[in-house]
Order: sequence, then structure tokens, then C-alpha cells
Amino acid sequence: MSTTAPRGAAPPSGTDLRALDAWWRAANYLAVGQIYLMDNPLLREPLVPAHIKPRLLGHWGTTPGLTFLWAHLNRVIVRDDLDALYVTGPGHGGPGVVATAYLEGTYTERYAHITDDAEGLQALFRQFSFPGGIPSHAAPETPGSIHEGGELGYALSHAYGAAFDNPDLLVACVIGDGEAETGPLAGSWQANKFLHPVNDGTVLPVLHLNGYKIANSTVLARIPQDELLRQLEGHGHRPYVVEGGFADENGQSEDPMAVHERMASTLDEIVAEIARIRADAKEQFDAEGRVDRPRWPMLVLRTPKGWTGPHEVDGKLVEGTWRAHQVPLSETRDNDAHRAQLEQWLRSYRPDELFDGEGRLVPALRALSPRGAKRMSATPHANGGELLRDLRLPDFTDYAVDVPEPGSGPVGTTAVLGTWLRDVIRMNPDNFRMMAPDETASNRLQAVFEATDRQFVGESAATDEGVSQVGRVTEVLSEHLCQGWLEGYLLTGRHGLFNCYEAFIHLVDSMFNQHAKWLDACRDIPWRRPIASLTYLLTSHVWRQDHNGFSHQDPGFIDHVLNKKPQIVRAYLPPDANTLLSTMDHCLRTRNYVNVVVAGKQPGPQWLTMDEAVAHCTRGLGIWDWASNCGNEEPDVVLGCAGDVPTLEAVAAVSLLRRHLPELKIRLVNVVDIMRLQDEREHPHGLSHPEFDGIFTTDRPVIFAYHGYPWLIHRLTYRRANHANIHVRGYKEEGTTTTPFDMVMLNDLDRFHLVIDVIDRVPGLAVKHAELRQFMVDERLRCRRHTRQYGEDAPDVADWVWPG
Amino acid sequence: MSTTAPRGAAPPSGTDLRALDAWWRAANYLAVGQIYLMDNPLLREPLVPAHIKPRLLGHWGTTPGLTFLWAHLNRVIVRDDLDALYVTGPGHGGPGVVATAYLEGTYTERYAHITDDAEGLQALFRQFSFPGGIPSHAAPETPGSIHEGGELGYALSHAYGAAFDNPDLLVACVIGDGEAETGPLAGSWQANKFLHPVNDGTVLPVLHLNGYKIANSTVLARIPQDELLRQLEGHGHRPYVVEGGFADENGQSEDPMAVHERMASTLDEIVAEIARIRADAKEQFDAEGRVDRPRWPMLVLRTPKGWTGPHEVDGKLVEGTWRAHQVPLSETRDNDAHRAQLEQWLRSYRPDELFDGEGRLVPALRALSPRGAKRMSATPHANGGELLRDLRLPDFTDYAVDVPEPGSGPVGTTAVLGTWLRDVIRMNPDNFRMMAPDETASNRLQAVFEATDRQFVGESAATDEGVSQVGRVTEVLSEHLCQGWLEGYLLTGRHGLFNCYEAFIHLVDSMFNQHAKWLDACRDIPWRRPIASLTYLLTSHVWRQDHNGFSHQDPGFIDHVLNKKPQIVRAYLPPDANTLLSTMDHCLRTRNYVNVVVAGKQPGPQWLTMDEAVAHCTRGLGIWDWASNCGNEEPDVVLGCAGDVPTLEAVAAVSLLRRHLPELKIRLVNVVDIMRLQDEREHPHGLSHPEFDGIFTTDRPVIFAYHGYPWLIHRLTYRRANHANIHVRGYKEEGTTTTPFDMVMLNDLDRFHLVIDVIDRVPGLAVKHAELRQFMVDERLRCRRHTRQYGEDAPDVADWVWPG
Repeated sequence: MSTTAPRGAAPPSGTDLRALDAWWRAANYLAVGQIYLMDNPLLREPLVPAHIKPRLLGHWGTTPGLTFLWAHLNRVIVRDDLDALYVTGPGHGGPGVVATAYLEGTYTERYAHITDDAEGLQALFRQFSFPGGIPSHAAPETPGSIHEGGELGYALSHAYGAAFDNPDLLVACVIGDGEAETGPLAGSWQANKFLHPVNDGTVLPVLHLNGYKIANSTVLARIPQDELLRQLEGHGHRPYVVEGGFADENGQSEDPMAVHERMASTLDEIVAEIARIRADAKEQFDAEGRVDRPRWPMLVLRTPKGWTGPHEVDGKLVEGTWRAHQVPLSETRDNDAHRAQLEQWLRSYRPDELFDGEGRLVPALRALSPRGAKRMSATPHANGGELLRDLRLPDFTDYAVDVPEPGSGPVGTTAVLGTWLRDVIRMNPDNFRMMAPDETASNRLQAVFEATDRQFVGESAATDEGVSQVGRVTEVLSEHLCQGWLEGYLLTGRHGLFNCYEAFIHLVDSMFNQHAKWLDACRDIPWRRPIASLTYLLTSHVWRQDHNGFSHQDPGFIDHVLNKKPQIVRAYLPPDANTLLSTMDHCLRTRNYVNVVVAGKQPGPQWLTMDEAVAHCTRGLGIWDWASNCGNEEPDVVLGCAGDVPTLEAVAAVSLLRRHLPELKIRLVNVVDIMRLQDEREHPHGLSHPEFDGIFTTDRPVIFAYHGYPWLIHRLTYRRANHANIHVRGYKEEGTTTTPFDMVMLNDLDRFHLVIDVIDRVPGLAVKHAELRQFMVDERLRCRRHTRQYGEDAPDVADWVWPG
Repeated sequence: MSTTAPRGAAPPSGTDLRALDAWWRAANYLAVGQIYLMDNPLLREPLVPAHIKPRLLGHWGTTPGLTFLWAHLNRVIVRDDLDALYVTGPGHGGPGVVATAYLEGTYTERYAHITDDAEGLQALFRQFSFPGGIPSHAAPETPGSIHEGGELGYALSHAYGAAFDNPDLLVACVIGDGEAETGPLAGSWQANKFLHPVNDGTVLPVLHLNGYKIANSTVLARIPQDELLRQLEGHGHRPYVVEGGFADENGQSEDPMAVHERMASTLDEIVAEIARIRADAKEQFDAEGRVDRPRWPMLVLRTPKGWTGPHEVDGKLVEGTWRAHQVPLSETRDNDAHRAQLEQWLRSYRPDELFDGEGRLVPALRALSPRGAKRMSATPHANGGELLRDLRLPDFTDYAVDVPEPGSGPVGTTAVLGTWLRDVIRMNPDNFRMMAPDETASNRLQAVFEATDRQFVGESAATDEGVSQVGRVTEVLSEHLCQGWLEGYLLTGRHGLFNCYEAFIHLVDSMFNQHAKWLDACRDIPWRRPIASLTYLLTSHVWRQDHNGFSHQDPGFIDHVLNKKPQIVRAYLPPDANTLLSTMDHCLRTRNYVNVVVAGKQPGPQWLTMDEAVAHCTRGLGIWDWASNCGNEEPDVVLGCAGDVPTLEAVAAVSLLRRHLPELKIRLVNVVDIMRLQDEREHPHGLSHPEFDGIFTTDRPVIFAYHGYPWLIHRLTYRRANHANIHVRGYKEEGTTTTPFDMVMLNDLDRFHLVIDVIDRVPGLAVKHAELRQFMVDERLRCRRHTRQYGEDAPDVADWVWPG
């Protein structure tokens, strides 16, 4: 919202509100029509069973509140020429937001077959929750939506993500009182301490208290209003309340016109207050370079669940109760009384006043919608690809680590990446953000703080470092909020990166699910323009939780991610700094994916020069000739590895083998792009069988050292010819607070055990080299004893070349 | 806490607080010792490098606050003979709670080698974060803990879970201001609306505002105090504030004695207020059968991070900043100045006053601890197995569905389970609870409301159904809160069940991880007595999201669960009501597991009589002879199935095959216990290879219809001889709001496709029966067309026997 936007001084006239009410009735009529009608969309004939859908699906309860707010926002959008985005927390109310998009003309623009006439109306009704049609919720298919109405909890974090770096945008965010009970939503209230009142946009939270969930009252509707307001004030807001539409003791509902009047004047106050806050902040920022944190207004909208719907059904109260949640009249095909009540309900909106003979919204109501991109259903912010600019990326090869020979270093891999990210931030000052749960420094990306700070608009202290009111890093100790912010930021056409401890990214498993499903659905929606991928950098990983131990060890996010559509998901395990740079440069250029990149933060050996790294990452996996000794011949054994720590152990195992068994022909294969292991018919990155067989052979033992749970490698390779010979070591839930080498030993991933595995698997070695095998067993014991006695690793295991 | 507990009237005398301060100093000394010392535990000689651990691990910052609160709670526990449990939200402060357990003597009772003398002290210090020792956090190894100090967010929900049905228990719950930023914690504040002030215990939240996380200030420490208090009041609390210990502008810290005095008098007020609230509630409840919701007291404890530690290191402020988070002096082996500062720090606690010549805590301080089970480190509530009583379970066979022949019904499977659960609730009125995110009725378990209500202590309304102030079902729209409550309830020795939509259980993936890791660690801790398993009933599953579509479809929780230790995790897919009853009866009797049970809520065909169901569930999988036609002969094809919908499709496919290809020898295998598929060396429930081969053959095609992601079956069976012939159908992320049969068709799991799979896989059939194959293709098209036209399934697919 522009700080200089004009605003109307007088409260809206009665005439305005009559028209607004008619527009609202039209939206509600269309919503009910979508839930119930197959035919007879304008009720030009009496309702008969054949007009009614066989399966009644959808959620009525929240719908009238959503359309009510939409209608009122339209009034101020038109008057003040606002840019607004509508985030539908109660996404179940799909019929409502589909209806408003249709009334604004956007639906017909997006879907030509849903015409602006009676036939289009019938198609609109029929397609809703109908096989081959559209889902029942606000969804990617819904114009104006950035928010799937499935899992609850993310409306407010999405809204704040959308508002970052969009100073002219007003994001109205409806929060259902059901959603308000979720943890992620409850944690999102604090987001207002991160929003800058000059550089970022405005979020207007609307807590829609309709009192009920599926089967139960809501908590916030059942505490005294002063306690509720105190809580909202404690979240840093100035809450306004609009309440109305309830029935009196005779069952007589309050005239909606009275509620419209209260809503309109309250919204005028709120819009004025937002303009004042922004103007004051601008003035202060220009003068002092800082701002006082505003107490942003918010709205509590208390209306009956299923408002304007059937008040009673079969003698039971419906309006204003949980019974209005889904379909209030459920037997309208077979039960004549239900059908009559449905017809009466539909006619109560007076469709003949709203639609002309052709079935088109009458001109007086058409005139109420904003124009073009000002329509909330058509705003490009809700189709972020329309606004997406390419990132300006510094040449990552300029940040290369010098690798005079394989195994040089040690170098901190993520620290190197941090220098590149620092310059990404510098080159993209208004459309790239990094999110993290207070871990950017812990994850060794601290170079970014040479270019920027953590953005925080709460109080500051002299001891703060790397924190200021303006910054490109947004950190809060909530993975949910980080994920929601980033999703909102990406969905509105910007770029970002989420860095996180590997184990705790599981906190957002379910949020990832919803985002991946959103991206998947968008593949079939031509008007949805591609958005930047959601890229995770997972570090502080399973093998190096030196401080924290067992509770911080879980490498299973990749397993979870790979359950989603192959067209959407990517996973990379770069083994060193140059491969990490190359991988991340690629990921930040991609669209419509979820990229998972796992890389350690502890200094480690470096394997590839930048040229080699680029070639290796382009292939996604490859034979490391310098570590192999089989040349072009078929090897006796293949050692595979993926991930930095397993790569170190595999290379060290090769070093041991080449010293002790120089005649053994070994091939070392490193995998960066884990999806290369899968069949090309299963994943677009998959290798063909001949390619795979050329690398892993069809009949030689493969000892594979993997970063995560070992069965993932089997899941990816079970169709390969050589699968029966693939033997995987990885994390098997053995861990505690101990040394790095003890960790790999606990899980049998250590170099000695890999050598034992080779001896056990290559025919003939076990008998011939029993002594060497025993030596490896003894080496493990020696290392364990050293660690138990001195509390640190034996010094020789820090290296990858075994002393000759 | 007993409502009749006596309480001291006068504020504590100065002498008391001097001793309390000494006890606190002893705890802090032991904490610092654990982080740093290998030797010289009593500083009887000057500190030299060899006394210091080579790897300095642990978190000092939160520790002095934890020990401070513990010391003060001990004072009122002793005085008022309270039963108290301490939940350490900032579990990083492991050294603190290990120290208090040692000072109370519990540590030595639990671990005989950690003796009560100088040698024991040295062992105590050495083992901390040391290979072969104990983890750095509060953990299962820590006496008195029910809460792993790893992932943050669950302290308060655990505390409420512990308090349910424990009217005499006071649960003090420390919430770090970092943890307070997480979504799950933020959502937990509302839990006080669910706690009954007569039947349940008391939770005393202590918000420990030390201002910093790892690298950053905390949000709640950077808002004005009146805003914070308003928020806490808005959460329904009466907050008390104790602030102190901060340095003045000269770096001079406030005398801790002054802080002790404020803390002691405030805690007296709080304890008195709790007693008053409980007494008043009891009186009101006895008189009116209802209570007014109390405004429970809580404490805001604002002290410096790393209080009493090094104030500055190398010229940089440490105490009171994020630099105190982990190890404030990091180079104490090599840097003489650091080591001198460490020695000075340790000596500042005046160890010679605290420990006698033997290294034993001096008698005056020993006397301050409560006795026996009153010690928070020794309370049986923190070792719930000590309190666990077996559930009284009604004979589940009495609830059997009559199954005159396979395929009878349809019957709603979870509705039948509901009748049994209703009686489980009746027979266990004080130690069994059901948790759900507002879904118990939606999941068709509504029979339980014949026996009980949803417990809610907020406002009530005339329209409420199944809600009252006392009830055994606790519902809130937060999976996190449900999971946290149940974990807290189980860990303190009770029983429960979590029912949830299948897709959204991913919300608690990470909480499950932590609980499973807790259970795994407990296997190695002899004094930890077994607790009841955590059992999930996942319903409203992927195949029947008729209302909600794609966003509600994710059967991957089993995949996630199976990454944890096989000794801990179990997964069951009962295909009908009798098998669900048998499965659930088994699960509720088990200990120390996580049981995942997946079963649909929609009416479906019933396959097994109760006798057959018991036998089938006991085996975990089995051949269904009535559906097979191969007798004792080797079949031409095996149809496997797991899950209710896949079982229906597999049986219908067999019906089609037997009609059209009567000569084909078919074996139908149903799997309830999915872990039976795995190798017996991998999972305790796994079949041996000969057993598996006896059922699935070594060389015949197996067409497996699975409930979830198909690759899970490959992951479980890749070592089986016949693996290359196993062909799995399952959910492959195809879905929308559509009909049930359209859903299985979208994912190629339908009966027609299974028949096509059989034709394609059994040698010779494809050529010979090309016409039949085409017929199946046409049948699919016919069904799809019907659905697209009429919005419902073709009527014939509702049945499992194909019309002859």
C-alpha cells in the first residue's frame, strides 16, 4: 500500500453498502450453487433432484465470512487504489474465493470455458468438487490464491512472506479460529517484529471467529473478549472488533446491513491507521534511519458459522454451530423438505436481482470490482511467476577453493559458500532473502553478515551483532515460520534459501508436502507462471553433531522428500566446497522444484578443482580416476559414496586397500545428485540401465558409503542389474555425544569397516587375507580405546591417506 | 499438589537463603566441572592443561537459571511436602540437571559408580559429553527428566500431559525464550483451558528470559515488558516477574542474595495462589459440579545468560549475551589466561565450603534436598513405568462384527472400534485418554461420546455437544499439542491413543523422532521402567479423502517411522473391523513401542470372522484360502495386499480373474503387520526367508496392492529371493477431489489394473488373453466416463464380487 494513497474521509453512504450487500449475496449464491447444483443455475425453474449433485462436497461454514471480507476490501481497494492480496487461511472455503474470482471476471479470463453467462455459471457450479473439475479448497487452480486450503497453520507466515520487500502491498490474511489453535499459526504472531514499515508491505490479520471447527467449539471463541484482546495486544497489535449477524433469542438474525455499516466504518479506520503508521515510519526513517516498531491494526471478525445459511435443519440449530461446517443440508436429492429448504436458501439471495437474463452479473455490481491487476483475484502477487526476475548471480567459479591435489585442505565447505551468498545478497538487494532458525552463523555462513544483517524491528541492545532493522537474513527460532516466510516470498515471485540443521528440517515435513503438492498441481495450470525453487541447505548434519548427539541426528528428510513427484524434487550431496558452489548456483537458477542440498559445516578435505567440480556436478555422479586403480578395466570392487563424511571414509578405505592389497582393482564412484541412481523412467535425472551398469558393473561387489539411512540407496537401485551386489553402509540410528570418528564407527561406516566389507564381498579375499581383516578389526578397537580414554579421536583418523 | 498441603506463612529467613545460595553454588560448580574437567574435580591443586577435557562440549548459558529455579523449588517442596516434577525445556542445560540430581543423591542411586566422593565427582565430570559417557543434554539418562533436550517446542505440552489426572502433582515447566519462539510451544499456551483444577494437577510455566539464543537475541526479550505481560495474561495466566543478577554500567553484577530474596518471596506467593485456586475450585466443584476457569500463576524469570560465569572474555562481553550459550572459555588447554579465568570462575563458587575432605556435599547442604520420592530427580512421575498400571481391557471379541461370509457388510471399521474404546474408557476412568485434533467424531469413533466428553474448561454454550469440563477425550486443533500431551501422559505412566487424519500426522514427524529416540535410549537404561506404547490410529486416509482431495493425501508416515530402530517401531494395516479390534487390543497392551495403525473410516466389506481375525493378526500375514484357488499347489501368481482399500481391490481382482481365467492358480495374501515382510535379521517381526518363500514363492509373479507409497514394499523385500518378481501398486501422488474408485484408478491400484498386471506378468497370458486384457482397459474407461458424467462411481464397483 502506497503511503501516499488517498483515502475517503466520510464513512460510506448507505447506497454503497446496499450494492456491496448485493455483491456479497451474489458471491454467497455462487458458493452455495457450487456445493449443490448440477443444473438450473439461476433457479429459473423449481429445483428438482436432477439439478442436484450426487455427492455433496465442500465447506459452507467459513464461506460467507470470506466473501464478506472480500466485498468490503474491494470497496477500499477501489476507493484508495490499493494493491492488495488476500490470503485465505480457511482455504476450505474454496467456493467463496472461486465465487469472488468469478464475479470479478478473473475466472473467465483464466478459464475460457467458464463463460460469463448462464452456461458458464452451470459449468462453474458443476466443476466444483466434481471428478475432472476443481478441488473443494482454495488451491493452485484458484485465481488469486497463494495458499492451499488443506493443512492449517501457515496463512499468517505466508502473508508475511508475501509482504517482505513489497512496500506497496496490503496483505489481508484471514485466520480461522480453528487454524489459530495450531502451533505454526500461534508462532506466526511474532512475525510482526520482523516486518519493516517502510521497506516491507503491510499485513492485516483478520481473525475470523465463527466459533466452531468440524465438531467442536474453538478455544479463542471461548475465552472472554477482553482476554482475547489482551493476547492480541500482547502480540503487538491494535485489535479492532466487528461482530454481528447473530440470531436473537427468537432465532431472528441481525440485519446484515447493520453489520456492513460497522464493518465499513471499522475498515475505514484501519486503512487510515495503516496509512498513518506508514507515513510516520517513512518520516522517521528518513530523518533517523530507524523506526519505532508500529502496533499494526488487526481485525477480529465475529460472525456466525454458516451465516445466511439454513438456521435450523430437522429441528437442530445449524447456523452458528459446527453443523454448518460442511454441507448443512445433506439429503437434498431424496428429502423433499431438505430440497425445499435449499431452494429457499438459494432464493434468499434474490438471484434475479443479481444476474440478468443471460446470467451475467448486473452492471451495477460489476462496477464494484476493482479493475485489472487491482482485483485481488488477478493480482500478479498471487501468480508470482509474473513478477519473477532472474537472480543476478556472481560467477561461482570466482569463489573456488584452490585444490592443488585431492584431499587438500581442510576447508570449511559452508564457509566458502557463505562468501558467494554474501555477494548474491549484494547483487540482489530487494528480491533474495535467507531464512534460518537462528542458525546462519552456526551453519558457518557468517560471511553473509559482511553484506547484511538479520532483520529485526524489536528492541535493540548495544551487544547485538549482525542485527538491525533492515537486513536480508530473517532468523527466528521457528522452522515453521522460516518455511512459511520463504514459501510466501517465493510464491509472490522472489528468491530465497533456507539453511537449517539437517535433523530439525523434519519439523516442516508436512509444510514441504503441501508446497510440493502445490508445485505439482501447478504443472497442469498453464496460467500459473513458474516460480523460483525452494532450496534447502541442510548442514550441521548427522555425522557432526559433536555438541548435541543423538537427538540431533536424522538424515531422513531426503527419504521424505523423495515420496513426492519426481518432477518436483531434487536432492544433492556435494562432497566439498567447489561442488557445493556449483550445486547451489544450479539450484538457485531453477524453477518449480524443491532442492535439498546436504553439506557439512566442519572443515574437511577438498577433492575437486573447480573445473572438475563443474564437470562432476553436471554429470551428477562419476568415477574418480585419481582414487581408482582399474583404468579402463573392469574393477574387482566398486566403492560408492555420497555425502562429505562418507566420501572421506570411502577415500580413506581406498587408500588402505591400495596400500595393503595393491593388486585389487578398485573403482571409486562419487554421487552428488542422488536421483541419478534411479531408473530414468522413474526420475528425470535417472541414469539409463546401460549407463548405470557401465559405472557400477553388472556383477562386481559395490560397497556404498551413504550419508543417510542405507535403505534409501536400495529403494533407488532395486531395479538395477547389479542390485543384489550392492551393499550399503549409512546411518542406522546409532549415536550419542561422541567424537566424529566414533560416530562413523558406531554405524559401521568407517574406513576400516569398509575395508572389511570389501574383503568379505570380493570372492577369495576373506580366506587369503584373514590377517588383514583382523588388522582392520584391531584398528577399530584401537581407535575406540583411544577415544574412550582421551575423549578425542586417534590423531591418524583425521587424515584420508593412511600412513604408508 | 494437594489442596490441603500446609504452607509456610512467613517469608524465608536470611539464613535459609544463605544455605540455598550455597546449594545453588554447588550445583553451578558441578555444572562447570562437567563441561571442563577431566581431573582435579575439587581444585585441590592448581589447574593444569591435563585436568581439562580435550573437547569442550555443553551449554553453559541456560544452566545457572535452571539450577536457581531447582534450588528454590526444593525449598517449597520441603516446606510444603509437595509432589513436584521439573520439565527442563532448555534441555541443553544438561549439566545443570545432572548436577542437581547428583546433589540430591539420586544420581549415585541410579549409577553406583558415580559415588558420593571425590572419585565419583571426577567420574561425574569426566562422563559428561565424553565418549562412552552421557549426552550433553537432559536425556533419558538423566534422573528426573521426561524430556530430551534436543528439539525445542514441547516442554509445555509435555508438562500438561504429565499433569492430567495427577491432581497432587505440581509440574514446574521451564520454557526458554528461544523455545518460546517455536510454533509448537506458542500453541501450547492454550493448554491451560483443558486442565481441570480439581481432577488434574498444576502446571507452573516458568518463562526463562535470558535474552539470547545461539547467536541472536530472543523475540520475547525484545518487546516491552508490559506487552509481554499482556500476552501472557491473554493466554489466561497471572504472570509474576523475578528479574535480577544483571551487571550495572561498571560491570558489577547484582548480589545473588538479593535475587534469592525476590525469588523466594515471589515463589511463596505463587505457591499460596495455587493452593488457593485449587481449594476454591474444589469447593465450587463439590457444590456446583462445575468450576470457573482459573487464571493460573506463572513466572517470568529474567536473569543473565551464563549468570555467574565469565563476565568478559578477551575483552568481549560474555555473561548476559549469546556468547555464553555454549562454552564461554574455549581455549582453556592452550591459553593460560583462559585457564586462569576458568580456575577463578570455578573457585568463585567456593568449593571448599561446599564439599568436605572426601568430596561429599556438606551436611548442611544435604539437608536442603527433599527426601526420597519427593526429590524432583527421583520422582516416579519422571520414570513413569514405576507408576504404570495395566489397562483394564474389555474382551475385544465381544465387539466382533458378524461376518457370515467374506465380503459381508458394509461396516464402518472405526465405528466398531469406537464401541470398544468407549468401554476401555469406562473401565479406566483415570489413566487412559484419547487425543485428537478435533477429529474423533470425523474419524467415526463417536461411540466414545456415549461414555465421556471432550474435556474443556473454557466457556460453554447451550449448543455444545460432547463437551464438558471433565472428559477423557482431549481435542484441540493442534497435532503438536495432542502429541505432546500424549507423550507427557505416557512418560508419566499412563495410557492413551492418538487418532488423526493420516496425511496430517506428518506434522509431528519430528516429535515422533524425538520420542522414538527417547524409547530407544531407554533400552540401555536399566532403571527406566517400561512405559505404555504410543499408539496412533491413522484414518481418514489417502484413499478416502472425498471431501478434501490432494492436500489431504499422504500415506508416508509409515515410511518415516520405519527409519527408526526396529526394536521400537510397529506398523499395522488391518483390513476390516475384526482385525482392527484385534490389532488395537494388542497395541494397547504393548510397552515401549510406537505403534502405527492405519484403517479407513468409511463403511467397507468385512472379510474375517473374529476367530479368523485373531489367527490372522497373530500371524501378521496369511494366505486367504477362501479367495485363493491353488490349494496346496504352487500358484501361478500371488496377489498380495495390505490396507483396507487395496484389499478390496485385490479381492475384486481375484473375483474377476477366477471368473475369466478359471484355470489360473491364484494365491491371495493379506498383510496386517507390514514388518513381517522384512528379513527376520532386520526386524524382530520379520519372516525368515523359508517362511517368506513359502508364502510368496521364489519364482512366481507377485502383484502387491499396497496402501501407501509402493517403494516401501521394495525397501522391505529387496533381500527376498523372489524380489525381482514383486510388482507393487500403491499411491503415487495422483489425486484430487474425486470419487473413491476414481482415486484407485488414478493410481493404477484398481481391480482392473491389477488384472492387467497379472495378465502382463504371468508368462503366456498376454498373448493368449489379449481380448480379456482389452476388456479390462475398456472397463476402466467405462468407469472413468461414468464418473466424469455423473459425478459418482459406476454402481458395480461398490462390490467386491464381479457380476458373474
